[in-house]
Amino acid sequence: MSLDGFAAGPNQSLENPLGEGGMRLHEWAVATETWRAQHGLDGGEHNSDAEVIDQVTRDVGAYVMGRRMFGGGDGPWDENWTGWWGEEPPFHAPVFVLTHHPREPLTMRGGTTFTFVTDGIESALDQARKAAGEKDVSIAGGASTVQQYLAAGLLDELLLHHVPIVLGAGERLLENVGDPTLEPVEVTASPTVTHIKYRVAHTR
Amino acid sequence: MSLDGFAAGPNQSLENPLGEGGMRLHEWAVATETWRAQHGLDGGEHNSDAEVIDQVTRDVGAYVMGRRMFGGGDGPWDENWTGWWGEEPPFHAPVFVLTHHPREPLTMRGGTTFTFVTDGIESALDQARKAAGEKDVSIAGGASTVQQYLAAGLLDELLLHHVPIVLGAGERLLENVGDPTLEPVEVTASPTVTHIKYRVAHTR
Repeated sequence: MSLDGFAAGPNQSLENPLGEGGMRLHEWAVATETWRAQHGLDGGEHNSDAEVIDQVTRDVGAYVMGRRMFGGGDGPWDENWTGWWGEEPPFHAPVFVLTHHPREPLTMRGGTTFTFVTDGIESALDQARKAAGEKDVSIAGGASTVQQYLAAGLLDELLLHHVPIVLGAGERLLENVGDPTLEPVEVTASPTVTHIKYRVAHTR
Repeated sequence: MSLDGFAAGPNQSLENPLGEGGMRLHEWAVATETWRAQHGLDGGEHNSDAEVIDQVTRDVGAYVMGRRMFGGGDGPWDENWTGWWGEEPPFHAPVFVLTHHPREPLTMRGGTTFTFVTDGIESALDQARKAAGEKDVSIAGGASTVQQYLAAGLLDELLLHHVPIVLGAGERLLENVGDPTLEPVEVTASPTVTHIKYRVAHTR
């Protein structure tokens, strides 16, 4: 998230899925050895940012993501679209994609499966929990999906990466989420980003 | 600042100068021994939040604030208004108040003086620098004043207190500030707030 609260830049499009300037929110991650290895790339830094990425991915047994994050445009599916990530996506786990349009599951290389869920966020979470077993479920994004789970009181933790840039416009992360009670429980300061894990108190 | 980027709540008024819910942004400070002592009150916690307040006030030789932070309503001055803080304000130093309306300086108890500056932010900063001597100048607020100094490239450091609440509406801290280059240089994590000091790179 930028310091002014944006999780993506303005004018998101198929060509520019993170919006104008939105890639600047992810530079710290792309620079790490951990992110690069997950994406089949060599090199990168082994630093505190890399540790954070490792921490938040190693115990994840399943992911939930929104239709926009999976991509391929709105409306009924173009079956040729299998996500932004190529033949071996970086998730290496079951991924449940929220959508209004049914589609058969996709099995990718490296242990990633995409299952398309049309009956709502609670159903997707239930399915992800079953798939994850003892491990965690991660709400991968985008902003609207995080908002829906936070507003519904279904998040236990919220991990924010405070990136020291001002985007000025774009998609806000924390709007339409009500008034959640958050408690900072772990802060990791790197030279470029401040990672803050919040515990979400369940009040409902 | 709230997690959604607000420095004050909505519907600010003379009766409710921080806006609805805006006081929640300051509870961490009011709970500290340091803040309470500066305001002539007993008690309070001696914790990492108190240390942060001590750090950012002990080397300050002069303050600059906006007209709204000083208060008293818009337009020509009601000379009976001498600020929100009573006879002994918590600044204990010269304070330069940005305004469009001339007014004679005020000398308060405890070393605080209020000087009213009508010829702009650079003039106020120059006067504050001279008054501060070897010590620092602090831009006390509010949001609009911080924005003007940040946009003009006149801040060396920006200290943000990330308060884990979502206000949903109010006055945003970081808008109309351009695209400053910020570098986190010091992070203090307390159980309630994360304080991040950013160095502002001067690019102009």
